[in-house]
Amino acid sequence: MIDFQNVLDEIHDNLKHEVNRGLVASYIPELSNIDAQQFGIYLKHMDGRSFSTGDWNIGFSIQSISKVLTLCMALPLYSEAIWKRVDVEPSGNPFNHLSLLELENGIPRNPLINAGSLVIADVLVSHLKQPKKEFLQYVRDLANDQSIDYNYEVAESERLTGYNNYAAANLLKAYHNLENDVDEVLDFYFHQCSLEMNCEQLSNAFFMFANQGVCVQGTCYLSPSRVKRINAIMLTCGFYDEAGEFAFEVGLPGKSGVGGGIVALLPNHFTITVWSPGLNPKGNSLLGMQALEQFTTKTKLSIF
Amino acid sequence: MIDFQNVLDEIHDNLKHEVNRGLVASYIPELSNIDAQQFGIYLKHMDGRSFSTGDWNIGFSIQSISKVLTLCMALPLYSEAIWKRVDVEPSGNPFNHLSLLELENGIPRNPLINAGSLVIADVLVSHLKQPKKEFLQYVRDLANDQSIDYNYEVAESERLTGYNNYAAANLLKAYHNLENDVDEVLDFYFHQCSLEMNCEQLSNAFFMFANQGVCVQGTCYLSPSRVKRINAIMLTCGFYDEAGEFAFEVGLPGKSGVGGGIVALLPNHFTITVWSPGLNPKGNSLLGMQALEQFTTKTKLSIF
Amino acid sequence: MIDFQNVLDEIHDNLKHEVNRGLVASYIPELSNIDAQQFGIYLKHMDGRSFSTGDWNIGFSIQSISKVLTLCMALPLYSEAIWKRVDVEPSGNPFNHLSLLELENGIPRNPLINAGSLVIADVLVSHLKQPKKEFLQYVRDLANDQSIDYNYEVAESERLTGYNNYAAANLLKAYHNLENDVDEVLDFYFHQCSLEMNCEQLSNAFFMFANQGVCVQGTCYLSPSRVKRINAIMLTCGFYDEAGEFAFEVGLPGKSGVGGGIVALLPNHFTITVWSPGLNPKGNSLLGMQALEQFTTKTKLSIF
Amino acid sequence: MIDFQNVLDEIHDNLKHEVNRGLVASYIPELSNIDAQQFGIYLKHMDGRSFSTGDWNIGFSIQSISKVLTLCMALPLYSEAIWKRVDVEPSGNPFNHLSLLELENGIPRNPLINAGSLVIADVLVSHLKQPKKEFLQYVRDLANDQSIDYNYEVAESERLTGYNNYAAANLLKAYHNLENDVDEVLDFYFHQCSLEMNCEQLSNAFFMFANQGVCVQGTCYLSPSRVKRINAIMLTCGFYDEAGEFAFEVGLPGKSGVGGGIVALLPNHFTITVWSPGLNPKGNSLLGMQALEQFTTKTKLSIF
Repeated sequence: MIDFQNVLDEIHDNLKHEVNRGLVASYIPELSNIDAQQFGIYLKHMDGRSFSTGDWNIGFSIQSISKVLTLCMALPLYSEAIWKRVDVEPSGNPFNHLSLLELENGIPRNPLINAGSLVIADVLVSHLKQPKKEFLQYVRDLANDQSIDYNYEVAESERLTGYNNYAAANLLKAYHNLENDVDEVLDFYFHQCSLEMNCEQLSNAFFMFANQGVCVQGTCYLSPSRVKRINAIMLTCGFYDEAGEFAFEVGLPGKSGVGGGIVALLPNHFTITVWSPGLNPKGNSLLGMQALEQFTTKTKLSIF
Repeated sequence: MIDFQNVLDEIHDNLKHEVNRGLVASYIPELSNIDAQQFGIYLKHMDGRSFSTGDWNIGFSIQSISKVLTLCMALPLYSEAIWKRVDVEPSGNPFNHLSLLELENGIPRNPLINAGSLVIADVLVSHLKQPKKEFLQYVRDLANDQSIDYNYEVAESERLTGYNNYAAANLLKAYHNLENDVDEVLDFYFHQCSLEMNCEQLSNAFFMFANQGVCVQGTCYLSPSRVKRINAIMLTCGFYDEAGEFAFEVGLPGKSGVGGGIVALLPNHFTITVWSPGLNPKGNSLLGMQALEQFTTKTKLSIF
Repeated sequence: MIDFQNVLDEIHDNLKHEVNRGLVASYIPELSNIDAQQFGIYLKHMDGRSFSTGDWNIGFSIQSISKVLTLCMALPLYSEAIWKRVDVEPSGNPFNHLSLLELENGIPRNPLINAGSLVIADVLVSHLKQPKKEFLQYVRDLANDQSIDYNYEVAESERLTGYNNYAAANLLKAYHNLENDVDEVLDFYFHQCSLEMNCEQLSNAFFMFANQGVCVQGTCYLSPSRVKRINAIMLTCGFYDEAGEFAFEVGLPGKSGVGGGIVALLPNHFTITVWSPGLNPKGNSLLGMQALEQFTTKTKLSIF
Repeated sequence: MIDFQNVLDEIHDNLKHEVNRGLVASYIPELSNIDAQQFGIYLKHMDGRSFSTGDWNIGFSIQSISKVLTLCMALPLYSEAIWKRVDVEPSGNPFNHLSLLELENGIPRNPLINAGSLVIADVLVSHLKQPKKEFLQYVRDLANDQSIDYNYEVAESERLTGYNNYAAANLLKAYHNLENDVDEVLDFYFHQCSLEMNCEQLSNAFFMFANQGVCVQGTCYLSPSRVKRINAIMLTCGFYDEAGEFAFEVGLPGKSGVGGGIVALLPNHFTITVWSPGLNPKGNSLLGMQALEQFTTKTKLSIF
């Protein structure tokens, strides 16, 4: 039987003095002031145990990790029709993210790239009466923690500087793949990305993906079939243009955000969240990637 | 000596009963109601004579033709530094217009595509105290006609539906190639495109390009060297992805707009404006292209 | 305990009268004459049992499925240096397969697209004395069946018509990512693709990917770590631009070929091969995709 | 009246001590040994006079300049049907030259890029009994100089290393836009590019483009209408992705080659050839571009 606490401690020891920690995301001004030395891990096992190390209880901006959660909330509302508005294929490389959208007539490659997540945000804005409030409650319930909240400064900071997202949303609108006003959809989107959570809260919120759709409180949120599909999307699309590399090196479904968080999971076993704010050139947490590689190497646990 | 009146009359006779007139631009709602049967030509010669036929005196939306005029106004204000923010190469095909912008790091291919003209609009917004008012006066003076005006309904119509232009402007902003607010630049841009002019007014406004920079009233607006360069840009970039075809079939510098207007010119000889609202699949006036092909075939006049 | 024989029989019954069977690959003349009505499945379980139905024992051209086998043979010869010459990321869409190669300076996206497999073929040609003979022996040993052979007519047919592969190989050569002569590499490549195997032989040959690197005869061919990585590559890159869809709908690592074969596997459980020659528009066996979707739906077995 | 000899001498004086001369083309081994200090100009006027300076009488590899001459020879053989196999639009940028071919289904952008010229070569191979011999005679007659010849070492050198051209030809073949064998077409193409001519010979060979289709000996080779069209293609497509820049800075139809030659012309006035082997980053003669810019600035002669 694997001694997970020992594994996490070893990884933490191996990496805590690492000098090269990548660069903290600077394109959102509010995120650029984070202390790059922070580093934490939290593992929640199906058997009820949990293990943690380092700065696991410090909240950070989950950013793109939120895309998995909005997708989960949107799926039951819009059902399979959603796949007519967004595809499930890996996006390949990022240098031409808008060109792909143009070449493919406004159908984003998958729901985990920005353009795809904007379509999902549009679905939620269309179907919810108070989208921001209801989504926040959804996440609080998933994680079983009512203290989770948006960081309104981060949301505002991104609203003022998120020109690429404005470009993507307008392009979607030009292709008639956005029902609501661009500003309304972006307002929701910037808030979902601004959610602040710590490693424990994220491991709890993603618990249902390891647990056949049943969340930490025992409520069933998604059918096993949908869980399986979302896990597949995370594996093939969860790491920008490093999805192949992550599958290759780590071998777990997961999702990263430019806040430096990465959540990953082994179905029927556990969820694990790693956080360190410095990013590698592809936008994924540098220490986070290394920590998860060490984790699957040491434990030999992976879906492959 | 060429009997220009006779040439224009023949062309008008040849084409006036043409059944296939293409499709009137529908993406700007205000433009979609135009009567596609309209067709006019106006030629203004350096020797003082002018010739006309058909609906030459009916105003229409000049749309992209305005891009040449904003470029002329911006050049003396920003001088050659402008070419660091926009290139002078043909853009190739349009299916990936935003992707080109991405691949080339926010430097538009040339000042006559939308993204390039947005950079020029940004220059004018930065350098003019009352950009819309001053540009309107500039065009009125060029054409020697104080009755020229914006069509505010068209400008508003495009503001409400111009998602592609919003996408382009935001992408430029993301690449730090837009100094002013996106909305401010677009407001100017939508107004410049909404200018209403008839064939005579356009032939007058473009007279300086055939006349070494000296306008119809005798004022010098541009140096001969700059005129030559703008003529070169019109020839290589003036017709979306049909620039090569226009050079090949017609052989004159010119610029088209989705309102169905085309202005062309032979340096040191004349300017000629053709208008017919129906467009070919590439967005250029269908009858306008045919009329100019017949014109250069009959007169054997071209720069080549 | 799952009654696999019953599951296979049900799938066979469901699909055997299917009218829409897609189109047999026609770009290789020799392949275009195959009877599209053929349909077989073979499952080989780790516990020693095997199950089959339909035309499981009829040989077919394995085509791109061979790319996984050459990769396995090349890895120990060239070791991790191979990942400097070929990446592990999904290739996205196929409409611009050579352009990706250009944009990425001659480094193919992954070893399972044509360009990537040509680099792997180049490695084998460099390191083996008799590449075609040795690779054939390798596959025979993996499958424990000395009757497996190339189809020389198919190889010759592709040599005469495989212009896209000639284009890719020459482009790789232009980028200095091919050591050997273009013709020599292509000769090997056309032969590897021409291999004829039936469903049983393929399930046996791929057994090591489900069995931690140990083949049917008990010999260890690859370390568990390398097996895991190759499974990850199959999952993210094994189905052209339908890799995401396959992960989403089926959820197993696998590889398809235009001969209509698909091999898939669940680590530590089984390999399964489905064959039906008609292809869907993305080049994967139409019935094969449906059969595997039904299989994972019925058995609820997947890596997710 | 312009003193052309004085203009050429001044340009030669201005540039002969220029230190930065760019890089001699190295991708064809035989071309990489050329002395970069060489620099010559030859102007042939319609009025019978000619002017020259520097190394105007040293032969060099004309390379892509030959594409205009094969186009001229092919046009009467294949007539306007040729424009179904090759377009007349500028190609935009070169980083994705093969991808453009893919995106546009095997129809090259214009006859002056490599892929387009391969289609023209295919036309000549189809229609001529002894293509290489007959094309050589055609050029000799155009230039009125029977001493012109292929450089067989250069042709062989390119045959051994021209992988990009092999890739393009095979891709054309895959799209059914090449009638003859790839090797046969490329053999012709490598020879046409290997032609050695000096500045005088090129100015003579291109004389017909300035002279309504009538060559130096008085024979009419092309109709005025076709001459006009080829001049248009040279202007919009003659300088790789620097065509816009050349039109903008120089304002004459012309064609460059990686051997360092540039031919340009003013219809009804003159042809001018400049040669200096060092290239700028876009593959055009660095001194040649500067010389022609100075020439049109000093003489104020351009088509615009």
